Amino acid sequence: MTDPEPAPSDAPTPAVVLLSGGLDSAVAAAIARRRGRILHALSFDYHQRHRAELRAAARLARALAAESHTTVPIDLTRVGGSALTSDLPVPKDHDPAAPGVPITYVPARNLIFLSVAAALAEVAGAPEIWIGVNAVDYSGYPDCRPEFIRAFEAAAILGTKAGAEDARPLRVIAPLAAMSKGEIVRAALEHDVDLSLTHSCYDPPDDLGAHCGHCDACQLRRKGFRDAGATDPTRYAS
Amino acid sequence: MTDPEPAPSDAPTPAVVLLSGGLDSAVAAAIARRRGRILHALSFDYHQRHRAELRAAARLARALAAESHTTVPIDLTRVGGSALTSDLPVPKDHDPAAPGVPITYVPARNLIFLSVAAALAEVAGAPEIWIGVNAVDYSGYPDCRPEFIRAFEAAAILGTKAGAEDARPLRVIAPLAAMSKGEIVRAALEHDVDLSLTHSCYDPPDDLGAHCGHCDACQLRRKGFRDAGATDPTRYAS
Repeated sequence: MTDPEPAPSDAPTPAVVLLSGGLDSAVAAAIARRRGRILHALSFDYHQRHRAELRAAARLARALAAESHTTVPIDLTRVGGSALTSDLPVPKDHDPAAPGVPITYVPARNLIFLSVAAALAEVAGAPEIWIGVNAVDYSGYPDCRPEFIRAFEAAAILGTKAGAEDARPLRVIAPLAAMSKGEIVRAALEHDVDLSLTHSCYDPPDDLGAHCGHCDACQLRRKGFRDAGATDPTRYAS
Repeated sequence: MTDPEPAPSDAPTPAVVLLSGGLDSAVAAAIARRRGRILHALSFDYHQRHRAELRAAARLARALAAESHTTVPIDLTRVGGSALTSDLPVPKDHDPAAPGVPITYVPARNLIFLSVAAALAEVAGAPEIWIGVNAVDYSGYPDCRPEFIRAFEAAAILGTKAGAEDARPLRVIAPLAAMSKGEIVRAALEHDVDLSLTHSCYDPPDDLGAHCGHCDACQLRRKGFRDAGATDPTRYAS
């Protein structure tokens, strides 16, 4: 959970990096790479409405020179309960800072994704999982809070070989935990992330990578660029 | 994690029950039902070698009068690392009590399955997840230990709505945690579980529900029936 020192340059550390294709995970991955990690990117085809993000994840994995990129299919429409995995409409021009858990929250999504990341970390021999969660501008998702990340780390150690025979380390690193969206955009520029490759929209107007401009994710993305005084190279439908 | 009191009969408690189709989860589900729980059975098509267990799970869900039965597809062959999800052979006549984590351990499987159960519990409004883990006769799987179950419960509460706006309870109940396989078979008979419906084999010789008789799961199952002085109604190839 803490921000680690760079790994010694003679022993690059493999790391599983959750890569959704969005802005935050791209920046988390770029920070990991800058710190000398060997990236094992992990994405999920969870039958999300915004599957365009999977193409963005593949582009980013290549751009970040990831050692591997694994996409795990898991059909979360069987569970439902979210506008991203059911027929519920994605709210437009809703206030992303409004109190409460928004309808775009996917039940236990980060818990599920981190669990699969723990499996991949074990198979890849990676002692670290990196995740781009942040809860400064958007505290409505319970699974983006630092206290969840710490509790998950403890459970994952006990539920894998890390806590069994060979006492391997397993750390969950959330380098954006305390950053605002504006700070994340600035970090992206500092780390040479090609932001034209990222895709944040929950309800894309087309299959070509455009953003709707009005869902919570688009509003937060726009705010981030505005606060950073930067120009978003992606296209908005309106 | 503790063994709960029966729910008041005028307010049946919905519970998500992990139902693999094997002996242990069938007994855990039967205990939940006997205690007045409304069962939401949850199974996984994780591309396991022994997919015969999924048919067993469907039969058991019907026999246990489950309110719902959800099967979530998740392709864990993308992660691999286990004889159950890769081309590695399933060991035969291996000592299931040998020290170390066996090759049939699927990395982080219970962590992943419990995470999806937490999602379903949230959507179904269920304050409980029941799981048939036990570590008495078979301590090689790290994710069957009580300390893992407790740590998972803490993480799941923080990573879902249970730990957010409405402070819902969420408990993970493992009624077989302290039972030997013999005690589990006895509990099955006490709870009228139709054991002919269960399927335990990791490497089935056919698609008709037979057991190989020599993988770890078959050896433990046979030991359980032997210790309970009971006859296994299922068929063994040898």
